[in-house]
Amino acid sequence: MNDSVGIVKTEYAHFDTELRLESGRLLGPLTLAYETYGSLNAERDNAILATHAWTGDAHAAGYHSEDERKPGWWDNMIGPGKVLDTDRYFVICSNTIGSCKGSTGPTSINPKTKRPYRLTFPALMVRDMVRAQKLLIDHLKIKSLVAVVGGSMGAMQAIEWGIHYPERVRSIVPIAGTGRTSPMAIALNALARQAIFNDPLWKKGNYPLEHPPADGLALARAVGHISFLSDASMWLKFGRRFSIRDGMFDFFGKFEIERYLDYNGGNFVERFDTNSFLYLAKALDLYDVAWNFDSLSEALERLCCPSLWFAFSSDWLYQPSQTEELVAELQRLNKPVEYHLIESDYGHDSFLVEPEKFIPMLRDFLTRIDA
Amino acid sequence: MNDSVGIVKTEYAHFDTELRLESGRLLGPLTLAYETYGSLNAERDNAILATHAWTGDAHAAGYHSEDERKPGWWDNMIGPGKVLDTDRYFVICSNTIGSCKGSTGPTSINPKTKRPYRLTFPALMVRDMVRAQKLLIDHLKIKSLVAVVGGSMGAMQAIEWGIHYPERVRSIVPIAGTGRTSPMAIALNALARQAIFNDPLWKKGNYPLEHPPADGLALARAVGHISFLSDASMWLKFGRRFSIRDGMFDFFGKFEIERYLDYNGGNFVERFDTNSFLYLAKALDLYDVAWNFDSLSEALERLCCPSLWFAFSSDWLYQPSQTEELVAELQRLNKPVEYHLIESDYGHDSFLVEPEKFIPMLRDFLTRIDA
Repeated sequence: MNDSVGIVKTEYAHFDTELRLESGRLLGPLTLAYETYGSLNAERDNAILATHAWTGDAHAAGYHSEDERKPGWWDNMIGPGKVLDTDRYFVICSNTIGSCKGSTGPTSINPKTKRPYRLTFPALMVRDMVRAQKLLIDHLKIKSLVAVVGGSMGAMQAIEWGIHYPERVRSIVPIAGTGRTSPMAIALNALARQAIFNDPLWKKGNYPLEHPPADGLALARAVGHISFLSDASMWLKFGRRFSIRDGMFDFFGKFEIERYLDYNGGNFVERFDTNSFLYLAKALDLYDVAWNFDSLSEALERLCCPSLWFAFSSDWLYQPSQTEELVAELQRLNKPVEYHLIESDYGHDSFLVEPEKFIPMLRDFLTRIDA
Repeated sequence: MNDSVGIVKTEYAHFDTELRLESGRLLGPLTLAYETYGSLNAERDNAILATHAWTGDAHAAGYHSEDERKPGWWDNMIGPGKVLDTDRYFVICSNTIGSCKGSTGPTSINPKTKRPYRLTFPALMVRDMVRAQKLLIDHLKIKSLVAVVGGSMGAMQAIEWGIHYPERVRSIVPIAGTGRTSPMAIALNALARQAIFNDPLWKKGNYPLEHPPADGLALARAVGHISFLSDASMWLKFGRRFSIRDGMFDFFGKFEIERYLDYNGGNFVERFDTNSFLYLAKALDLYDVAWNFDSLSEALERLCCPSLWFAFSSDWLYQPSQTEELVAELQRLNKPVEYHLIESDYGHDSFLVEPEKFIPMLRDFLTRIDA
């Protein structure tokens, strides 16, 4: 545990304000759940913002208690001596709005009606999540972040930070990201949505929180799970093995990969709200860095700081070509940009599974940014 | 209509026999639905068997009536002067057992109980489908087929014909096939299965045929549909266009790709039985050319005739590497084998969408076989 941040606590910041969203609707007041690791220096200029993916949360490192079985979701990245070095940096991670992990989302009470928002919650874009995060960075009196670093939806947030608050970030590190979700990714999210809509327990979002549409959400999660993996990683982990508990010719017999998807889907229901899952899926689908700009070029022209990009060879959800499109445009615009295509068999999830493959380049980059 | 086979009729062959299946169970008596195009010559040696994919049927070419809107599923391949030239060949297509298009399957009446089989139908392998087809070829008194040609599950049937009845086939043409389904393909089928199992109307297979689990089956079909397409083809056809009928920030607003999946899923329910869909999915998952052999090599060693293989660059369901593995082994065994990787954006469905890309090579091949 020498390189662990140890026991940590989620904090909550409340903002008595209304945020104007991309949709034109207002959302507020707002609560943001967040954690911090390391110490903010006297100049308040050593902060790094780590941004989470779809079903992530503010708990990026350390343990909430001595008994917690697993550390935060990016614990292999954040800690004393690690690449996001808490001896040096003040690392912040905040739960996005729309989620269900402490920040304002569909399960929150709408102060106007005193009842949970559910489907009256406004549709969000990733840009709105970042707009809310900026309230937190203001609140912490941080003028400029050393870096915004995140994978998947976290990469989208890093890009939006760089484009919309160029004066507030000294670098961005989008990992396994995309400039806009592809129709294939949208189609997969459409399956997940429909799996939930088909569940009679969903009741158009009005399920009791203790009786969520478990079958639908578990199936929706399985769709996501498949898209985060790769054929190669499935061969490594499961191959064509048939469950030893089942007969191969039993109608309900399962392959090991099926059991795994079932098991993970079931677990997920315990830890994530269905409506939040749907709102965040929509935010992913709507993501387009060029939204409300005339062109991709016009959007990327606003990025002033150095950027470091990673994509993974086996990622078929946000394919390397999608990152490469952005990198090529930044190069054309003569922006300081660095890109690495990482060979990995773990698909989209590589950013969580094999961080050791990109940590050295990230370490070098941060050393230069922070020099 | 000069190159059409014109008005055709599905025929039915009844076999008062019991087939021993790979599972050890017996199935019989059997009915096979089939169509034929062209004329069998006096030597009875000009027959080609076209084998269909998952949700295909015996109606491969021509029209059932003057009013039929669409011709058979491979009409662009079968007809006078076409590559499967009915002026020259006697082309046969039969519905596989396990399906719901006229051949014995879960909707058929079990003669022992006088009630539909439903889930008492035995689990099938592709090898069993071919074993049943052989009854038909025997019935038609055809000693040897010029070729067995098929895509996807049809390719699996072609391979099984070549390996298990080497004396009955003069060539095989597996298109967009695989020697064994990958865990990714199994995982996608698992999603489809679960979508049906989650539908309360499914009732463990005991739904009234006029009230199938429509939502579950439509969603299951959407899973398949996505895996048959490619990211490139979705960009071409839908891009990121949002349905003009919906507001982008509406919770239930849909992208065009979603509307398309919905529409096709809904149509599918009208034309396919849910239990058949599940039995065929299981047969696909269980498919392994080396099943009951000691090795892939031992299985392929049995293939005596020339084989012609096509794979498609954008097919991520049965990836070209899967065909290439078989081709490499056949080459190692000094078998006469020819392989073409076809550049196409249409994913697994390319074998239906762009036959013009492989027809010339198939034409040359058949000319040589038939010389």
